[in-house]
Order: sequence, then structure tokens, then C-alpha cells
Amino acid sequence: MSADQPVTVEVGLGDRAYDILIGSGLLSRAGTEISRRLPGTRAAVITDANVAAAHLDALKDGLEKSDIQPAVITLPPGEKTKSFAHLEEVVDGVLAARLERGDIVIAFGGGVIGDLAGFAAGIVRRGMNFVQIPTSLLAQVDSSVGGKTGINSARGKNLVGVFHQPKLVLADTEVLDTLPIREFRAGYAELAKYGLIDRPAFFAWLEENWARVFAGGPERAQAIAEACRAKADVVARDEFETGDRALLNLGHTFGHALEAATQYGGTRLVHGEGVAIGMALAHRFSSRLNLASPDDAARVEAHLRAVGLPWRMADIPGDLPDAEALLSFIAQDKKVSRGALTFILTRGIGQAFIAKDVPASEVLSFLKESHPGEQESRPGQQKSRPSQQKSRPR
Amino acid sequence: MSADQPVTVEVGLGDRAYDILIGSGLLSRAGTEISRRLPGTRAAVITDANVAAAHLDALKDGLEKSDIQPAVITLPPGEKTKSFAHLEEVVDGVLAARLERGDIVIAFGGGVIGDLAGFAAGIVRRGMNFVQIPTSLLAQVDSSVGGKTGINSARGKNLVGVFHQPKLVLADTEVLDTLPIREFRAGYAELAKYGLIDRPAFFAWLEENWARVFAGGPERAQAIAEACRAKADVVARDEFETGDRALLNLGHTFGHALEAATQYGGTRLVHGEGVAIGMALAHRFSSRLNLASPDDAARVEAHLRAVGLPWRMADIPGDLPDAEALLSFIAQDKKVSRGALTFILTRGIGQAFIAKDVPASEVLSFLKESHPGEQESRPGQQKSRPSQQKSRPR
Repeated sequence: MSADQPVTVEVGLGDRAYDILIGSGLLSRAGTEISRRLPGTRAAVITDANVAAAHLDALKDGLEKSDIQPAVITLPPGEKTKSFAHLEEVVDGVLAARLERGDIVIAFGGGVIGDLAGFAAGIVRRGMNFVQIPTSLLAQVDSSVGGKTGINSARGKNLVGVFHQPKLVLADTEVLDTLPIREFRAGYAELAKYGLIDRPAFFAWLEENWARVFAGGPERAQAIAEACRAKADVVARDEFETGDRALLNLGHTFGHALEAATQYGGTRLVHGEGVAIGMALAHRFSSRLNLASPDDAARVEAHLRAVGLPWRMADIPGDLPDAEALLSFIAQDKKVSRGALTFILTRGIGQAFIAKDVPASEVLSFLKESHPGEQESRPGQQKSRPSQQKSRPR
Repeated sequence: MSADQPVTVEVGLGDRAYDILIGSGLLSRAGTEISRRLPGTRAAVITDANVAAAHLDALKDGLEKSDIQPAVITLPPGEKTKSFAHLEEVVDGVLAARLERGDIVIAFGGGVIGDLAGFAAGIVRRGMNFVQIPTSLLAQVDSSVGGKTGINSARGKNLVGVFHQPKLVLADTEVLDTLPIREFRAGYAELAKYGLIDRPAFFAWLEENWARVFAGGPERAQAIAEACRAKADVVARDEFETGDRALLNLGHTFGHALEAATQYGGTRLVHGEGVAIGMALAHRFSSRLNLASPDDAARVEAHLRAVGLPWRMADIPGDLPDAEALLSFIAQDKKVSRGALTFILTRGIGQAFIAKDVPASEVLSFLKESHPGEQESRPGQQKSRPSQQKSRPR
């Protein structure tokens, strides 16, 4: 295992500040990096069966070097694991290992494990130390920054949880080589999102360098670090999601509706793919509302297509519900505040903003135009624009 | 219903500051007081079957005056309700009512309901608004101040939860008239605790005025307000229990051991009774260690006896496990940090302090002396004292 010097991204949250280390060979250094920051503590590792089979021995070796012999709790892989039943299982396991408040819960897996283990760490003894070792690209760029933890409810995804910041994140870029390519690509959609929100130069860099990010050169760590910095900036401005943090939902309102429309099956559409199509639609919708140039929408679509991501509804295999039904999924989304439709729209690449009170009729017409089964043309362009909230200068 | 001007206690926690209103007739003003602070919000009331039968109509009338028609979730009464299963039930109920982050969860009941509903409010959508309407004396003086919420685990009480501060607490003193006298007395033990921790004048006032507190005159609101102020002072100094807040555990280490020894049955010993005996033992133990005068221990014992509370182990009906077994309950207590025995001891009435590294042998000898089944006399007084941590001057 190589052990190049990792890139460090500092997440500045005052007395909850922490480091993200990004680089190859970090599993073998896990004990050293953890002990340096949290000396003399004991740990429980929460993981899933797939990650355990591929990487648990390497992590245990890395922890063993600093005399950390963790309790290990292994869960079934998959989104269904984010449930009350598994939360209780993890909580009981951590308590059974007699860990105290100053000891550590280590999340070792993708977003599901990170969200579930982080939630457990946030509630056992009203908050234990928490370390993230994300093993998917999505988790490295997204779930591991920001402190959101949680589980799903029968009423919707991520409706139950807490804000609980980790003390350290170790993103081992080598581990990503064992990911199925479809999963890597899905994570890449969230990575590219940060260019589209407010870093146009990063998006241009990705258009040039995406193949090296996929191949695993130093560009991979560079790209992950830039995405983490971008997210950390937004989170530091708005830790508890009362304002700007909503920008991170770029692509997610359309994306969640498409995920819901395909029953979150994960066969037809995984989360990052939904976000990819959602981002393309958000740009096209912004162009349709005369907010942004159609050239920018075309550029986003071209890049997603180039890396092999779906970018339009027609790319989803099988039939979709009609536009009315898709709109009803959007209206049920938790980002709907008091009945008004809130969208993240854009004025161009890297110029996303929060648009409140977007008229449902506009969304419906746009969905009809974009729907592979309902290709009606519309008589003319709408003049009314939604009220806008400028994203703050940085 | 009378509606005298309530006493207001401000809990100063920066941007999490809130008011406690204490007085009679507050249920009928609930809508007014809530709407003044959280206008235009919807609510869910979490309560138990006993409280609902006695007081739910009065609360609903009070809310109705401000057009609040709450969803109501009624749970079985009793400590067993603080479980994962009931937590999930409350979370689902709040989500089913389609409440959003800015809406309110109202805890309407004793400590069990407050802890459970507060935990649910802390995790639904990662934190909703929370209002406490405590209906027991214990909850009014203790559970409603400090932001601790949680449930029990098979591994112990209150091991799972979050810190989540309410936006408002309404302590209606009239509601307490429907409490069984034993429960009122048990709550009184926690109230008197604040005099013993650091308010000697309050303890002296209680020695004079306790009968009027029981009878329900203005002294009742006065006493509850003083206890809330005392707790709020400690919590404001140490919101997340890293130091001084441990003073609130006066009487609780011995008390929890006795509760555990009686299987938390609630028939032989309720929590406040355990605390009463625990406080008397903490004073007697401090005197035995030559830290405090035996006269102070005698004064505490006399007051507890006067109000009808148990004050020694012999007051618990039935047999107790032996001193060794009681010590093992103490050593399992979550307040044991890394194997060292931590106790709240005292230098006299109103002079409690945190004592770390109390030798287990001292505790064992004292338990043997105090145990009704093991009345051995000891050969002489021990000279060694535990290390001390001074409580901060105020």
C-alpha cells in the first residue's frame, strides 16, 4: 500500500472544527491519525458486509498499530439498513462494548453506514466521539462533510436524525478502486455538483481532467479535496441549514422525485444518477425561465454524457409516471417549505441560487416538455420569474 | 381556574435561551404564551393516558384560544414507555401529522413524557421546536430544565438521547394537586436537593415553609421557581455536562444503586425516594470522612423525615442485597468515569462538591455500617480523603 502525504481539508466550525485527510493508504495509518487526535480511547467500527469483506482486515491492521482493538458491528448493505431497527442494533452494540462518552464510533462504509453510525454516535450517552472512514466516492465528497446523520422513515428518506460532527474524516482514495464503476460514476455526479454551485473553474478543470479522476491518479485526491472544501465552505456558513446550505440541493429536487418515481429501487436509478439528471434539468429549467443561457445547460448535459452518466429522463430504463405524478413527488419533498415550491436554479455554470415560490404551473409545463412520454410543444415562453435569493459573495 | 401572574425564570443559554413560566392556571393560557413566542406554528401534543384523562381537555381549550388544534399522541404511563419502540411511535406520529421543522412538539406529562417527547423533537427533521408542559413536581423542578432528553436501554437508564433545549416551559402549579401524595413527595426530594447543593438559605426556607409548598399556596410557585433558577444556573455554566453539572447528581449515585437493587419497581422505591435516601447517605458519608459536621447530616435526615420521605436504607420495605452487591451497582453506574468512583460529597448544607477517586473500600465500609442487615461497628475512622474538586464560587 502506498502512503503518499495526504491532502488535508480543514472544516472550520469553531469548537467543532475537524480535519478531512484525503489520500491513498490511509487505512494503514488510521490508528496513528486517530490516536494523535483522540489519545487513549477505545472504539467500535460500524460497517457493512461488503466493505468488511473487502477492507476490514486492512483497517484493523491500521488500528492495531496504535493498540486499538475495536468492537466490530457488521450490518447488511443497502439503503434499508437506515432503519430504527438497525439504529437500535448499533446503539445496543456500542453500549454492550461498554464504550464511554470519550470513546469513538467509527463509520466504515458508504453513505448508509456513515448516516446510521453517525446518528448512533450522536445519541449514545447523548453524544460520543465520531470518526468517518468513507469508502464510496459519494460518501467521501458528500456524506462525510457537514454533520448530517440520520435514518429513513416510512414517511420519507432522512427524516429522522441529528447534526453530529465527526472529529476526523479519513478518505482513502485507493479504496475507491474496488467500487463498481456505476457507483463511482454516481458519486462523481455529486462531485461535479460543487463546480456547478459556485466553482466554475473547478467545473472547467473536471471537463479536462475527469478521466484521470476516474483512473485514480493524484487528480482523484485533488478533485475530492476541492469538493470537500466547497462543501465545507457552505456548511461553515450555515451549519444547521437555515439558509445557504440549501444550495447543496442543486439537482436534488428533480432527482428525488425521479428516485421516488422509480421506487428508490437502485436498479433503474441510483441516487447520484438521479442527481445527475436533476442537475441537467435544473440548468435546462433555468434556461427555459430565461435565467441562464441554453449553452450552459448544453455544457452540463455534454459533460454528464461524456463520463457515462444519465442526463435526461429518457435515460432511465422503463416507463416513468406522467408529469403530474412527478410534480406530486416534488410537492411531497421535505424541501417544500409551507407549501411553496423551492428550487435551486442557476444563472450559469457556478452561479446557483435559491429560488423560492417557483410556480407549480411552470414546473409542470417543464416536466411535460422534458418527459419522454409527453413530448408536447408549448405555445410560448413564460415571462414571470420566481422570486430570487442571491447567493452571498464569497 | 385562577390565573395569577406567573413567575418567570429565564434560562440563559445564548441563542438557546428560553423562559420557564410557573404559576396556576397556565394550561388555559398555553395558546397565548406559545403563540407569542412561536407564531403561526402547528403542534403535536405527546402525553400519557393518565395525564390525558385528567388534563387534556383543559390544555386543548387553552390552545384552541390561539387556533392551535394539535395532533395528540397518547402513550401508556410508566418508565417502560421510554423505549425505542415508543420513540419510533412518536416520531412516526409527528411525521404523519406532517409537521415541519418550525412546528412544535409539546411534551405534556411527567419526566417520562418529557424525556421521550424531547428526544423525538430533537431527531425529527434533525430538530423541531419543543415546548414542555410538565405535570409532575419532579418534572417541573428537574426534567424540564437542562435540555437532557432520552430513553432507556437494556444496558441502563437514560443511556440514549440528545441535548435539546425547549423554547418554553409552562409549569402549572395547580395541576400538581391531582398528583398522588407519594409522587409529590418524591418530587419534593429533588426540589430540596437544590438547597443542599449550593443554596443553604433556600434549604432553611424549606425547613420553615415545606407544609405550605405541599398545600399549594404561593409558596409552591416560589419554591419551584427557586429550584428552577438553581438548576438553570448550573446548566448555564455547563450545558453539556463536562464539569459542574455533575453537582446535580447529589444523592443520585447511592440513589440509583438502591433503585437498581429494588429492580426499579416503583412499588418499593420511586426515583425521588431513592434520591432522598441518597442525599441523606451522601451527607452522612461526608461526615464519616470528616468532611462535614454530623449535625448537618442530622438536619438533612430530620427534614426528609418531617415531610414523610424515606431517609435511610431501613425505610425501604423488604430485603436489600448486601453491601458488596450495592457497591457493584454503584460501580456499574454511568457516572463512573474510567473505573474511578466519583461521588458528590459535601462540606455542609449548601456546600456540595465533586469528589473524584473515592476509594471503593471507604464506600463499602460505609454501606456496611448503613445497611439494616449488616450492623457491624468499625474499628476506627479512616484518615485518607478523596481528592477534591472545588465547586466554583458564584
